[in-house]
Amino acid sequence: MSRQSNRTTDSKKMNAELFTLTYGALVTQLCKDYENGEEANKQLDKMGYNIGVRLIEDFLARPSVGRCQDFRETADVIAKVAFKMYLGITPSVTNWSPAGDEFSLILESNPLVDFVELPDNHTSLVYSNLLCGVLRGALEMVQMAVDVKFSQDTLRGDNVTEIRMKFIKRMEENLPAGDE
Amino acid sequence: MSRQSNRTTDSKKMNAELFTLTYGALVTQLCKDYENGEEANKQLDKMGYNIGVRLIEDFLARPSVGRCQDFRETADVIAKVAFKMYLGITPSVTNWSPAGDEFSLILESNPLVDFVELPDNHTSLVYSNLLCGVLRGALEMVQMAVDVKFSQDTLRGDNVTEIRMKFIKRMEENLPAGDE
Repeated sequence: MSRQSNRTTDSKKMNAELFTLTYGALVTQLCKDYENGEEANKQLDKMGYNIGVRLIEDFLARPSVGRCQDFRETADVIAKVAFKMYLGITPSVTNWSPAGDEFSLILESNPLVDFVELPDNHTSLVYSNLLCGVLRGALEMVQMAVDVKFSQDTLRGDNVTEIRMKFIKRMEENLPAGDE
Repeated sequence: MSRQSNRTTDSKKMNAELFTLTYGALVTQLCKDYENGEEANKQLDKMGYNIGVRLIEDFLARPSVGRCQDFRETADVIAKVAFKMYLGITPSVTNWSPAGDEFSLILESNPLVDFVELPDNHTSLVYSNLLCGVLRGALEMVQMAVDVKFSQDTLRGDNVTEIRMKFIKRMEENLPAGDE
């Protein structure tokens, strides 16, 4: 499905339940399509990437969002503005690497997994992997190559959900960008 | 994916963009899975049904929502409370049949199709068909069998999007309900 580019900055507020359940339908469908959990994870990441490259336009169109000066500022904007806006939660930014090129987003709660229980036969599925793709795609559009992955997940029995983000490189401004 | 039943009534607010794009990923996946648009429509309706039977619990748990006395009241609650809550829009209720058993919801805008264009080869796809399933499933949980379908769609060039709802019958209170 293609989208026109004249996105407006006003946005509709909705409750997360319908999104949570629709996301569940998507993951369930992918689990049917790809018996291998790893393949479903890849597909979720790829879908997320394509969402991220589109969502960032909408995000940057907001007057409150300016250009980030460094990775620390990027981390703060992701946690305090983007997560708040799109998922209604504010993860904490923590576990910085000494070099300042890696940090974690700790999600006390994750709306995507509200009331979800993983069936036993899907042990390799990273249920919320779409989010990693969204972050990766959106950051690529602002010339940052970042590795994004879940390192803890309440769905797997961890106490919190942790997304680990590692800065790889600044990308050339003029590279053409497209769907993966 | 199963869900626990101890749903709380507080809910997270989010913007519709991420939902819109995730829904687009779901429809795109179904179009890959089922080359026939009719099959994709059926699958969307079925997914929506399963979402509706869950969403209604959450909806009825809200203190502001009481039991409807008749189909007209049901129509108003769907348009003014449910659509507003879950999609951030308030459709108008109109085109009542003389017998009062059919009405239309007119959506001036439909967040599901924001910035979507149907590819030419998907002429039979009813892009937002999930919504019909959600309404059907939710209403079945309050013992109302209702036929729900799109009769106009801006994606197909109509000026508005119209969901036509036809009351079929009141169902037995004690029938066990489950996923389709």
